[in-house]
Amino acid sequence: MRPYVIVNVAVSADGKLSTRERRQVKISGSQDFERVDTLKAGCDAIMVGIGTVLADDPSLTIKSPDHIAERTRQGKPEHPVRIVVDSHARTPPDAKILHKGSGKRIVAVSEAAPTERMQNLKSLSDVIVAGKKQVDLTYFLHKLAEEGITRLMVEGGGTLIWGLISEGLVDELFMFVGNIIIGGYNAPTLAEGPGFIKESDFPTLKLIGTSIIEEGVLIHWKMGD
Amino acid sequence: MRPYVIVNVAVSADGKLSTRERRQVKISGSQDFERVDTLKAGCDAIMVGIGTVLADDPSLTIKSPDHIAERTRQGKPEHPVRIVVDSHARTPPDAKILHKGSGKRIVAVSEAAPTERMQNLKSLSDVIVAGKKQVDLTYFLHKLAEEGITRLMVEGGGTLIWGLISEGLVDELFMFVGNIIIGGYNAPTLAEGPGFIKESDFPTLKLIGTSIIEEGVLIHWKMGD
Ligand SMILES: NC(=O)c1ccc[n+]([C@@H]2O[C@H](COP(=O)([O-])OP(=O)(O)OC[C@H]3O[C@@H](n4cnc5c(N)ncnc54)[C@H](OP(=O)(O)O)[C@@H]3O)[C@@H](O)[C@H]2O)c1
Ligand SMILES: NC(=O)c1ccc[n+]([C@@H]2O[C@H](COP(=O)([O-])OP(=O)(O)OC[C@H]3O[C@@H](n4cnc5c(N)ncnc54)[C@H](OP(=O)(O)O)[C@@H]3O)[C@@H](O)[C@H]2O)c1
Repeated sequence: MRPYVIVNVAVSADGKLSTRERRQVKISGSQDFERVDTLKAGCDAIMVGIGTVLADDPSLTIKSPDHIAERTRQGKPEHPVRIVVDSHARTPPDAKILHKGSGKRIVAVSEAAPTERMQNLKSLSDVIVAGKKQVDLTYFLHKLAEEGITRLMVEGGGTLIWGLISEGLVDELFMFVGNIIIGGYNAPTLAEGPGFIKESDFPTLKLIGTSIIEEGVLIHWKMGD
Repeated sequence: MRPYVIVNVAVSADGKLSTRERRQVKISGSQDFERVDTLKAGCDAIMVGIGTVLADDPSLTIKSPDHIAERTRQGKPEHPVRIVVDSHARTPPDAKILHKGSGKRIVAVSEAAPTERMQNLKSLSDVIVAGKKQVDLTYFLHKLAEEGITRLMVEGGGTLIWGLISEGLVDELFMFVGNIIIGGYNAPTLAEGPGFIKESDFPTLKLIGTSIIEEGVLIHWKMGD
């Protein structure tokens, strides 16, 4: 058993999540921002990889007071549980994700995480150990389901998304394609990692729909079986 | 003066042109194939980079007999002029692009191209020297305009497209997004090269439209000013 997993990202017209320096870039506008905030508000937890925490320092909180109020009315915490996938407990103790907004955090680490860093994090967040050298995503998602998380949103980056897709752990994918070109063979994309080689290994998707949002295009896929 | 430049590519849902091994992959189906054939038939020339010739060995001919007949009726050659951008004259003498279908070919080389390889190519193709170590695309496109080429289609790969975009030489972009995930930080994307760093350098695009073709999405952009 695992949560239903929804990936949401914004890419440039040439498929990049950011520049080769991994510097966060404005790809979408306020209308897409609201769509993402609404999607977030409908989830039990939001997950990112440690690469994204180190590069962007996101808080992953819900921004709209209406959504927060609605969640409260439904007896839910103000913000979804915020999760970092971080094999070596590198999440900086002052990371926004650990401080901004009320509610629970979970850092997923591996057995290879240095004890001291793990102990430090334990005062700021729940810590779940999953996997020997790297976070075992299948096992970790199983643990999240046990914690009552049934709907999980993943906000990137490309390395974590690759990890999830290659283990068959993604159900839906929203990709906003913005009207800029970033370029660069080293700039991160939606699915990094080693990549697939054989056509028979490529996961297939089913198109749910597309919509034009401000200057860009939102593509909504469901992962195939 | 330069030709009007239209880039057409097919990418996976995660923005890859092929696998990390640069092996050609089926991304689109027969309906998109026909769209591309029609687009080709409306152009004076089709251009690719030497990376694509070495990886895919394309012929770049028009496939539909109707399009060929229509071109002939209009007094045009059966196939558009086929062009390789190839600084060091590495185009294999038996490359399909030099042999399949009637009509003119042009290989763009730089002054750094070995004389012998250049001489060999000259018996199979026109050869234009542009640039010192690498093909000077701005100068080369100017030369193409002088040869009467007013509408140029570029079929990739990502390194050549980057070269064109970074020199402001692209007018339109068609990107078919297919329903597969390829993955891989080393797999080629629509715009390779070093990439832009500063947001003020990002070229912006204007969305012309989107359409659903079989299992994927076609995004049509115009490059901004
Ligand atoms: N445009 C957008 O929508 C968007 C969204 C998010 C991020 N971004 C951009 O993406 C970039 C960061 O992406 P990234 O790819 O470097 O980092 P990332 O995907 O956020 O994090 C990847 C890291 O997660 C850890 N990890 C642990 N277990 C894993 C597993 N089983 N599978 C995969 N990863 C695992 C690994 O580090 P350890 O081994 O140390 O644990 C890995 O390096 C930044 O430039 C950011 O701006 C853009
Ligand atoms: N899915 C699709 O629609 C599609 C279409 C085409 C290709 N592809 C894939 O793309 C891959 C090949 O792409 P690629 O990026 O390796 O090669 P490429 O873009 O086809 O060719 C790049 C080469 O062109 C030459 N070049 C000369 N002057 C240049 C300039 N001013 N700017 C840029 N390039 C210049 C360079 O080699 P020299 O220095 O030796 O001249 C450069 O390495 C293959 O895997 C192929 O399957 C996919």
